[in-house]
Amino acid sequence: MKILLVAGGDPNHWPAFSNDFDKVIGIDRGNLFLLRQGIVPDLAIGDFDSLNEAEKEEVFSQVVEVQTSPAEKDDTDTQLALTTAFERYPNAEVTLIGATGGRLDHLLANLWLGVEPRFLPFLRQIKISDQGNDVSYIASGTHQIAKNPEMKYVAFCCLTPVKKLTLKNLKYELSAVDFLQPTSLASNEFMTGDAEVSFLDGLIAVIQSRDI
Amino acid sequence: MKILLVAGGDPNHWPAFSNDFDKVIGIDRGNLFLLRQGIVPDLAIGDFDSLNEAEKEEVFSQVVEVQTSPAEKDDTDTQLALTTAFERYPNAEVTLIGATGGRLDHLLANLWLGVEPRFLPFLRQIKISDQGNDVSYIASGTHQIAKNPEMKYVAFCCLTPVKKLTLKNLKYELSAVDFLQPTSLASNEFMTGDAEVSFLDGLIAVIQSRDI
Repeated sequence: MKILLVAGGDPNHWPAFSNDFDKVIGIDRGNLFLLRQGIVPDLAIGDFDSLNEAEKEEVFSQVVEVQTSPAEKDDTDTQLALTTAFERYPNAEVTLIGATGGRLDHLLANLWLGVEPRFLPFLRQIKISDQGNDVSYIASGTHQIAKNPEMKYVAFCCLTPVKKLTLKNLKYELSAVDFLQPTSLASNEFMTGDAEVSFLDGLIAVIQSRDI
Repeated sequence: MKILLVAGGDPNHWPAFSNDFDKVIGIDRGNLFLLRQGIVPDLAIGDFDSLNEAEKEEVFSQVVEVQTSPAEKDDTDTQLALTTAFERYPNAEVTLIGATGGRLDHLLANLWLGVEPRFLPFLRQIKISDQGNDVSYIASGTHQIAKNPEMKYVAFCCLTPVKKLTLKNLKYELSAVDFLQPTSLASNEFMTGDAEVSFLDGLIAVIQSRDI
């Protein structure tokens, strides 16, 4: 089961995506962008306060299921959408697009979805993607990371303090190094085959990227 | 003393900036972008491996002082540039542009400059700026935050765990709340006058932004 979540960021940053998603969930303004690309979301979630009346009508008249959230709330619409996705489909692979570019406070809220305890059980099922970046998450343990053939670089971004980080089968390797504060180990590159990453505590965003 | 640091991100994301900087430091590809805007940096720093031979020649022939760093090094060119700026001018206000947009591993490396212990003494002197975002940093204590009149929203992004965060004179207020993991308190807004922010431990990026 593959679910596409589409947040309200500039659609010019969307990655190229095939239409092989089983469900598409639009988040607030993301619904409008989807409809204008000829894709009718299965579910629209949002407070829709970023849309004017005509735009709201455009969404409400075409999307069968709309979940309207209050404008003033603790969770962002993206958090609500991710929660709903996993409530309905606990085994789904979720790809979030429209989540980067533009406002940095939104970008950080999206990137830090991975550190929220409620999403930890689904950590390996969440991806954030744009034209030049492909973000996934790993928690402590040992992981084999496969190269995304469309990307050039791989970065290990410690979103929290991380202990004894070991990186193997990469251009720049590490052996049991502690990172006491958030650190972006940027611009690494795969060698032949998968990379092996292990660490004890904390949470890492694995960001594969290319210059665009 | 005001210093402008220009990293290699897409110049389309640069904020509008006046030419009232005392020094301009170009970082790697940022030098090329500066020259093409008719600005000759006072100092060029970088490994310059993102430039071809003609582009290198363009930079090296026009910039009087060039610091060439090795391509394989622990610090990024931006870290080197920030270090050099504060070595030479410890009281300078530094604005970093060309540091957002594009690759997320670069963006995070830039955003997390503020959590590096070596830059802590200069924390209030560092800004990261693009067309829609204005980032500054605060450490534990009590701070008055002034509205940037060009921006609409203000976010308090806890880059590390933060204790007893209190937000006053804002649309959404908080009283002594702990945040155990990185959290983006996005989309807040100023009321009349400065906001007051206090907390005990950790580090916050204050991000003022607007939709563009």
